[in-house]
Parts: sequence; structure tokens; C-alpha cells
Amino acid sequence: MPVEPTPEPRLALRPHHDGSPLHVSTAAPSLGETVRVRLRVPAGAVSADGSPLGTLAWVGTRSNPDREPRFSEASVVVGEPRDDGDGEQWWEAEVEVQNPVHGYRWLIVGADGRQHWLNQLGLHTTETRDRDDFRLVAHEPAPAWAASSIMYQVFPDRFARSVAADGRPVPDWAMPAGWDDPVDVRPPGRSTQFYGGDLDGVREKLDHLESLGVDLLYLTPVFPARSNHRYDASTFDHVDELLGGDEALVRLVEAAHARGIRVIGDLTSNHSGDAHEWFRAAQADPAASERAFYFFRDEAQGGGYESWLGVPSLPKFDWSSVELRRRFIEGPDSVVARYLREPFGLDGWRIDVANMTGRLGAADLNADVRQTIRRTMLEVNPDTILLGESTNDAASDFQGDAWHGAMTYTPFTRPLWSWLLEPGSPGGGGIGFALGAVPAFTGRDFHATHLRFAAEFPWRTRTATMNALDTHDTPRFATHARPGTVPVALGLSVALPGIPVVWAGDEYGLTGEDGEASRTPMPWGSETSPDVASVLETYRALLRLRREHPVLATGGIRWLAVGDDVLAFVRESAEASVLVFAARTAASVSFDASGLPAAAAVGTEKLLTGEARFAASDGLVRLEGDGPGFSAWLLPGVAAPAW
Amino acid sequence: MPVEPTPEPRLALRPHHDGSPLHVSTAAPSLGETVRVRLRVPAGAVSADGSPLGTLAWVGTRSNPDREPRFSEASVVVGEPRDDGDGEQWWEAEVEVQNPVHGYRWLIVGADGRQHWLNQLGLHTTETRDRDDFRLVAHEPAPAWAASSIMYQVFPDRFARSVAADGRPVPDWAMPAGWDDPVDVRPPGRSTQFYGGDLDGVREKLDHLESLGVDLLYLTPVFPARSNHRYDASTFDHVDELLGGDEALVRLVEAAHARGIRVIGDLTSNHSGDAHEWFRAAQADPAASERAFYFFRDEAQGGGYESWLGVPSLPKFDWSSVELRRRFIEGPDSVVARYLREPFGLDGWRIDVANMTGRLGAADLNADVRQTIRRTMLEVNPDTILLGESTNDAASDFQGDAWHGAMTYTPFTRPLWSWLLEPGSPGGGGIGFALGAVPAFTGRDFHATHLRFAAEFPWRTRTATMNALDTHDTPRFATHARPGTVPVALGLSVALPGIPVVWAGDEYGLTGEDGEASRTPMPWGSETSPDVASVLETYRALLRLRREHPVLATGGIRWLAVGDDVLAFVRESAEASVLVFAARTAASVSFDASGLPAAAAVGTEKLLTGEARFAASDGLVRLEGDGPGFSAWLLPGVAAPAW
Repeated sequence: MPVEPTPEPRLALRPHHDGSPLHVSTAAPSLGETVRVRLRVPAGAVSADGSPLGTLAWVGTRSNPDREPRFSEASVVVGEPRDDGDGEQWWEAEVEVQNPVHGYRWLIVGADGRQHWLNQLGLHTTETRDRDDFRLVAHEPAPAWAASSIMYQVFPDRFARSVAADGRPVPDWAMPAGWDDPVDVRPPGRSTQFYGGDLDGVREKLDHLESLGVDLLYLTPVFPARSNHRYDASTFDHVDELLGGDEALVRLVEAAHARGIRVIGDLTSNHSGDAHEWFRAAQADPAASERAFYFFRDEAQGGGYESWLGVPSLPKFDWSSVELRRRFIEGPDSVVARYLREPFGLDGWRIDVANMTGRLGAADLNADVRQTIRRTMLEVNPDTILLGESTNDAASDFQGDAWHGAMTYTPFTRPLWSWLLEPGSPGGGGIGFALGAVPAFTGRDFHATHLRFAAEFPWRTRTATMNALDTHDTPRFATHARPGTVPVALGLSVALPGIPVVWAGDEYGLTGEDGEASRTPMPWGSETSPDVASVLETYRALLRLRREHPVLATGGIRWLAVGDDVLAFVRESAEASVLVFAARTAASVSFDASGLPAAAAVGTEKLLTGEARFAASDGLVRLEGDGPGFSAWLLPGVAAPAW
Repeated sequence: MPVEPTPEPRLALRPHHDGSPLHVSTAAPSLGETVRVRLRVPAGAVSADGSPLGTLAWVGTRSNPDREPRFSEASVVVGEPRDDGDGEQWWEAEVEVQNPVHGYRWLIVGADGRQHWLNQLGLHTTETRDRDDFRLVAHEPAPAWAASSIMYQVFPDRFARSVAADGRPVPDWAMPAGWDDPVDVRPPGRSTQFYGGDLDGVREKLDHLESLGVDLLYLTPVFPARSNHRYDASTFDHVDELLGGDEALVRLVEAAHARGIRVIGDLTSNHSGDAHEWFRAAQADPAASERAFYFFRDEAQGGGYESWLGVPSLPKFDWSSVELRRRFIEGPDSVVARYLREPFGLDGWRIDVANMTGRLGAADLNADVRQTIRRTMLEVNPDTILLGESTNDAASDFQGDAWHGAMTYTPFTRPLWSWLLEPGSPGGGGIGFALGAVPAFTGRDFHATHLRFAAEFPWRTRTATMNALDTHDTPRFATHARPGTVPVALGLSVALPGIPVVWAGDEYGLTGEDGEASRTPMPWGSETSPDVASVLETYRALLRLRREHPVLATGGIRWLAVGDDVLAFVRESAEASVLVFAARTAASVSFDASGLPAAAAVGTEKLLTGEARFAASDGLVRLEGDGPGFSAWLLPGVAAPAW
């Protein structure tokens, strides 16, 4: 059997470290705590250029407390330090967490004296940046369930109508639509077309969520507004009566909790609607306390007020107002707190436009606002999650001081599209492709781009960041996907670190050319169509894989091989490992088996049926498939020394 | 004549932009101002992989105001947009400076629709990080003279003794040494060996500084202390009497100013000495107001106090003390202000351990402290420079809000050593090489590492950052330099963006194995030795090059070719350009001539004698030298459209 060389030089044989429990003794250290960190060096380990490292002359960490470098020498805890022959070496060093976000990287000196640096981007032969260091974070961590969640995103107007919805009056701003009407993407319909889905409708469909295996329901806004998307809230004091009001939310959360499904809401910390009671009070009376909640311009400056991207219906909040903070985000009587408490009991928030929040010109109160939100949440219910929308490079705000994870498109969504869409596909609105064009990526481009944007996150942020194929703001992935690649995309979303996300309707095979068109009402009843049933089965199988193998949520990740058309990596823990092979076409890849000793030694259990085959011989593992597909094999856990 | 291919794919033919006046209409914009930025596209421009870009389909910028992307389309101001044939195209876009540090990058779409991103690291085919964007900065800029300065660093105890020094009593802590005694690098001598140089001694040697062509004198600390280095100040109220006291500093600054030489001092904002009057007051009386200037630990915490890297003689300042700020850094009566005013008239400060200042555990007041220092300086004398010591990755603190430039070793000093030292040379103490070993770099490694650490600085920070071969804290470069490479190193320090630095004694060919051994007393009188005379002549010639060609201070930089042993780039302005060729051994390099149209069209004037030769034929420029050397040719200015 001919074996192609691995395109990236012997990725599987590089020394490895990541933030997972195999490699870090304490995921949530306190300030001042000493954490033990471990480096794994496979037999025959190689440098970034593929040449042998030989017997390692020195191994240790470089930290940067108070921005001054400090080194900590490692010692061997498994294996023979003077032997680069058989078996995997494990090195261990101690790192004291001296700052709340404490960076460290590994320094590895090979037999020839050459220095190699290992950071979150990988292995390097020249000095690296602080920003790509691994990180220990002493801030309060996300709840334990964050990383293992499987999210389902619902846009309430388009999900399901309960019988009660029929009796409700249609508001003055709304253009009523029948459930089967096409989505109107042109203004004013794009924001006023009103299908009338409601929260009892969601509750009545919890069977569907449960059958998919999701356990975290994300509701886009439920507060009264003057649009179908409700990102222009007119009050935060109660749930929209059009959705069934407060009681419907209480009923939904209770019913969801009874099935083990958590529910989070969506808050707009950057702006309200111009019909918001606060904004109306501010407009009506310049002496009103609410006047300071917004940025009103003097007449000399042309009058008016600051708003989101200049859209007048979305006036921007001024977070220098103490009263705004008190009402909205700070303390047990704030909006943030209120819906986490009984009777609502939401399990957290997704924050809209988190990236722009508190930022305008020379003012930047973003860190203060996000930390205040989280502090309030910790006070009323620490077992809650806080996600922030930051759809481009999110690194600087997501270092673990408040947001647990990002709704971002840089590390996963856009590179995924670039790898798996038909070349030349339009980008559509909302997903952030420059000029609306989807660049064509190789698998190597995907890998490099994914790492580039994931590497600046602490590990805990990576595992709580949303791996969405698409959202209510983007086109739907399936619209222009290469044939057979929906399972590849969903497979990567469940198998890469991060929270898999199902945007309601994707599991029915819906398509949509942009972020408006993708807000299609759910095609309930179409499950009987063989095409839909097939997509549903794919979703159920892949989400089941994630649910049944916790290593996919919290395990480490080692990349094994990357090519134009293939990606191969392994998620690892002491209990189990899962080997992943994703291909966009018929392709094969091979890599050094000694980098995957368990597979070579004991063989594998194929977790997903599919075309791909696993073979190990002559010191190489070979993965081969006859078409696009996502395959996974169960491997034994890593034989790690006890902590 | 055989011509080798350029190792980096056709670097000279890539589209180009940098922060220099050729490419940015306003170097010091105000917040809200619209700045015009320009992209140059040479005829036959290529992508990062060397393939032709063809007729460009779209060109523009991507900014990130308030962290939300915004695009601005460019139009052609010179050349034919539909023609990628002859001549250079200039594209121009408008960028509104919406935040005090406003990032932007270029998006270039080639004839085949492929997208290319140009940022401070270079050209890319996949999405790039915000941190590598070009930047417009609306904070107050450095004085105009900052970038064109040539710095000379003096360690007062070791520079020169005036006659007056003989009459002064030797302090109790000092171990007197004769001027010709060897430096004692072992404790306690390393910090107490006392040669007795003084400020009148410096003044008497201003002829030497003038003959070198330096115009910015940087004095390490001059305040009373209990060590030869004086980084352990016992007061900031007056200049050390051992140096001649306040009057001697006044005399020195006056005499220097009369020759057009500016003078800056050195302040320790991270710590004082344990003999400092503030610290003694704090220790003597827990109720003293000075108690809050430092971090005293409770008995329950083990007592004692925080100090620099645990060295008890250097107690660390607690910048949460309002009184400390008032005395030291804030307002016209502060230490920071006092020495900038008459009668002293210093021209600025270099701040010691700027990286650690205000940082301890969860506290980080660094931004506040540095901004307060600069605000005070702006109040008493805005025509002053503020440099911060941050010897490793300095990017995060040096975005233009306070420090004008960095004393750092990441973008220049360490990569320079790695390229030009004998392989296997020891790193010595103080320069920050991991494990004290100097990694061996190729020219490509130098180029990549230089860019990696320079790319996160705004352009203005790059041009005010110290390009030191070495300092009082490091070994001396010449100690283990490859034969013939001192002119190469100094040449790069004058020719790359940044402030060239002469650490006193380097121009006499001094050597020293670490940061203590390099504090050798100046070997006055040795100028008559042919070896010394030769080094002095090299220094004079290269600093003259910098002085006579302002383009080396403020011009743009375009890399033309990079190889194992060679670097070639051009500094460019509308008035003149200088082509630079640096080689560490006999080597040649060639690159596309159309990327350097002026050279091909009008020929060149060789600025420095040396072995290297310039030839242009068949569309290629070839640079060739018979040994290590630094060569520069004067080219016409760039034919840029008027703003």
C-alpha cells in the first residue's frame, strides 16, 4: 500500500502541551498557587522542521510574572531523560500563578543545543510573543458544564407558535406572515415581518431538542421591542407579551430544566431600542436621570445621539452612568441579576455586541462593564455562563476576566466555510467575510487560521467558545457547502475544543443566503422527507458522539496531520481518546504511529460508520477515505502519571 | 554573471505600505481626523507566494473602530488601475481615526479574486490578527527630534573623572578602584567597586561625543545611592555629590545643549534603594505617610516587603499611594518635572524596569503610572522624550499612550546577536537569552524575528525605539562577534527604523562577557592604537551616514531580499532613498529591479566604501560582496504624489 508523506513535517511527533487536565494539574488555580504543567515528548520527537530532537538537553517553562521573564526547569516524571528511544517521555515543571492571567511557554533544548519554543501556536525555533503563551487563569472559572454543553440556538419569532399565539394582537410595527411564507429580506420586512413564534412554542418542542441531544438552549432576545429580532429592546422589565410574557419564560425554563436542558438569554449591553423606556425618558427631558444613559450630542456637535453603527433605532449606552449600571448590570436588583433568579432561573447570558460595548472614541469601559456583569452573576448564581459576541479577532477581551467564551467567527466558522464551501461561493451578510467573498482555503490554511485565532485564548476560553457552523446573523452553512461536507463541518464543531452549536433549522437542512434569509421558520413536519430525515440522523449521531465521549469536550488536542483536503487530530484524556479524520474529498493521510502509541498498540474502535479506514503498519498510521466524510475512532486513554 | 534566486519569493515586488510620510498623510492625527493612507503596488506585483497579482480587482483598508470592522475603498492616485504593466501604482484610502490607537490593514484583491492582507508583518493570504495592524495614534507624539536622534549611553562612574573628583571623600559603601583596574564582576565588588567618574568628567569629554556625531546623551542614574550603578537611589532630591551635585548636572546639560546635544536622565519607577529617605521613613514609623509608598507585608504574611526580583535593597513602589504619585511623578513639583525644568533642563527620561512598574499580583497600575509621567512632562516641557525599559516583548505597553520608544532587546538586539555572533557564543547575563545561550539565526530568522516584535508597535514607536548593539546591562556585542561584523551590526542600527545607540566604549572596541563586565572604564588615550582608531572611524562613518541622510531616521522601509547571510532593504522618502546591503560573509543577492525603479533608472551613488558591488541588468538588481560588510547606496527620492 503506497503511503504519502504527511504534508506538515511530522506533526504527530512534536512535543506536546495544552491546557487540558492531562497536562495541567489545576484548571482553576488561585492567585499565588503553584501549578504543575507537563510536556509530552514522543519517542523520536522532532522539531518544527521535522529533524530529530534527540536526547533533550534541557526542558522547562518561561513565565512572565509582572512582565519579567522567569524560568522553571522541568524534570522527567515518566521515561528516561537520557534516552530518546522507546516510549513517551513526560516532563513536569512548576509554575507559580503570579498574575491573574499568567502566561508560560515551554523551552526545549535538543541534543544539538538548538532551542525550541512551544506555545499555543505550536513549535518554533525563534523567540515567540507573549501573547501566544499558554495561560493559567486565576479568575473565577466558567461552570464545569460550560465546556461539555451542546448548544441549540432559537430565534423565538421563527421557531414555533403555540396555540396561545393565535389570540394575541399584532403590534403596530409588525407585518404578519404565515408560517410557510418566504422570509422577506428587504427592509422594512426584514425586521418587521412577524411570524409570531412564542416561548410556549419552544416549550412544546423540547422533545425535539432532547432527541437531538442538546442541553443548552440559547434564546435570542425575549424582551419587548419593535422588530422581529428584538435586539432593539423597549424595556428589560418583562418578557414580551407577544412571546407569552414572564410566565411563558418561567414555564419554558422549568420544562427545560426538567429535561436537563439549561437556558440562556440574550442582552444588548451596547444599546437599547429607541423605543426603550429609558431612552424615551432621556429624550423627553434633558434633566432626566436616564439622559446620562446615552450619548446625546450638543447642538454644537450637530445634535442627535450615538447609536450602533449609526442606526438611529439603536441608541448606544454610556457606561459612565452609575445609575445605568445599577439598573442594568450591577447588583441583585439589576436586569442581569433578575432573570437569573427565581422565578426565571436563566442559566446565563449571551451578550450582544460585546466587542463594542463601552467603547466610543477615547472611552473604553469594556473591561469594567464585562467584569461588573460577571460579578453580579457570581453574586446571584455562580453556576451560570457568560458568553460575549465578538465576531472577529476576539483575543484581547477574552482572557478570562469575565466572558467565559466567545461567539466569534474567526477561529472556527469562517475558516470552516473557506475550507468546505464550493469555491467561489458568496459570503453573504453577517458572517464577516471581507467584501462578502469566501476565500478558498486548503486544510493547512484552516489549521493555521484556527490556531492563529484560538492561540490567544486561554484554554478555558477555547473550550467555552461557540463552534458555530452558522447563526441567526449569518448565511446557513449548507447553502453552498461542497457535497457531503455537512457532516464534516458538524463533526469538526463537536470534535474541536469549543461548544458545538446548532442554529435551529440546520438539522432540517435549511439554507439561507445571508443573516436575514437564514431566519427561516422551522419546517415542522418535514421530518418525513428522506432528505430531512437523513440530515436529522447526521445531527443526532454527531451530537451523540460528543455527548458520549466527554474527551471531546475537555480533552487535550494534538494535531497529527494536515493536508489540502484532510485534517487529522486526536482528543486525549486519561480515560479515553478519540482520533478524528475529516476529509472534504477522497483522500488519505499518514503519520508516524509512535506519536499515537495507544492506537498502534491496541487498535481502535470505529465510532462512526463511514468510508474512512484506519490502518497501522511499518511505524505509520494511515487514514483513507473514498469521499468527503468525518470519521472518529475510540482509542484508549493516555497512560498519564497521576498528579 | 549567474544570478541566484532571491530566497524569499520576490519580496521586492510585493505591494507596500508603512507608517512613514510617503504612505500616511498625517503622522500625528487628532481623534476624529481623517487620514489618507497609500498603498504602493510595483509593476508586476506578486503575492506572498510569488505569483502575479495581475490587475487588482479591489483595494482598500479594513479598520476596527470600537472593535467592529469597517472597510474603506481605495482609489488609484498614480498609475492606471486597469493596467498591471509599467510603472508603480499608488492607491489611496481615507481612514478616520476613531480611537486613540486606530488599527488598519490593507485588503488587496488580485485579478483572480484571491484576497491578500497587508499588515505590519507583511503580506498574507489568510485573515490576520488585529494586533498586527498598522496603527494611527491620536495620543501626543514624541518630539520631532526623537526619531532622528543618535544616542550615546554613559554610565557615570565609568566614563570620565574630572580633577574635582580627586578631592571627594569615598563613601562608606564603596571599594575604590584605579581607572585602569579590571572590573570586578563578583559581589560585592560588582556593585561597590568605585571608579569615581563624575558629571564634569562627562562634560570635559563632549568633544568626543561631538566628533562621533551623537546628539542625545543618556545618563544612567545620577541620584545618590549605595552602589556604583545608582539604581538604588537614596533620594531623588538632588544629584549625587560624588558626581558633582546639582551644579555639575546643570553645567553638563548647558554645555551639551551648546553643542546641540540633548541629555536625558534615568528614573527608577519600579523601586528605590532601601536607603531611600522615603523607605527609611516608612520603616521607622508604620504611621508615616511614606509607609504606603511600598508594599510592606503583615507579620501574618511573613513580614518584610516586596522588592525587585526579591532583592531586599530594591523595595518596590506601591503606586496606589496618591502621595507617592504627587512627590514622584505627578505635577510640576514632582521629581519627574523638577529635572526637566530650569536650572537642570533635562530633555527627557529613560524609565528603569518600566515593564514591572506598578505590577504586582492582581494589581496593574502600569498604564496609569506611565500616562501620569508623560502628562507631567507635557505640562512642564512637551519637547521631551520618554523611553521605557522593557527588554522582552514590549508590545502591549508601547502603543503610544505614554512611552515614545522602548529600550528592548526583542526586535533588534537579540536577533542581531543571533545572526552575527560566532555560533555557540555564550549569551552572558543581562541580555535575556534563555539559558544564557545565543541561538544561531539565519538572515531569514533575523528578518522574521525583527518583524514579529516590531510589528506590534505603531510606526512612531518603532522609530523612537532604541536599536542598541548592547547596553550597560548586557555583554558587549564585539566580544564574540564574527570577524568583520561590527560594522554590519552598527550599520543595521543606523539603517533600521529606531534610535541608534552607542554604549560608551563600544567605539573603542571594548569587550565584556556580561552586563557587569561591560561597565569598563573608558580607555581614554587608546585612540592612538591603530585598532582603536579603526573602530572609531567605523563609528564616525556610520553615524555620519545616519546624520547626513534623514531618510534613515524617518523614511519608510521596504525589504528587498533576505537570505541566510544577507539582508537587503531600502529606506525611502520623497527626498532621497538609501539602499542597504548587510552581509555576514561573502555573499550575493538579487531581486527584481522593477521593485526599485529609481535604482534601475538613474543608477546609484555608493555612500560607504566597502567590498559590495551594485549591478542592475536584465530586470534584476544584484548586490555582491567579498566578505562581511555593510554597504549603502544613495538613490533618488520616491516620485510620490503630493498630499
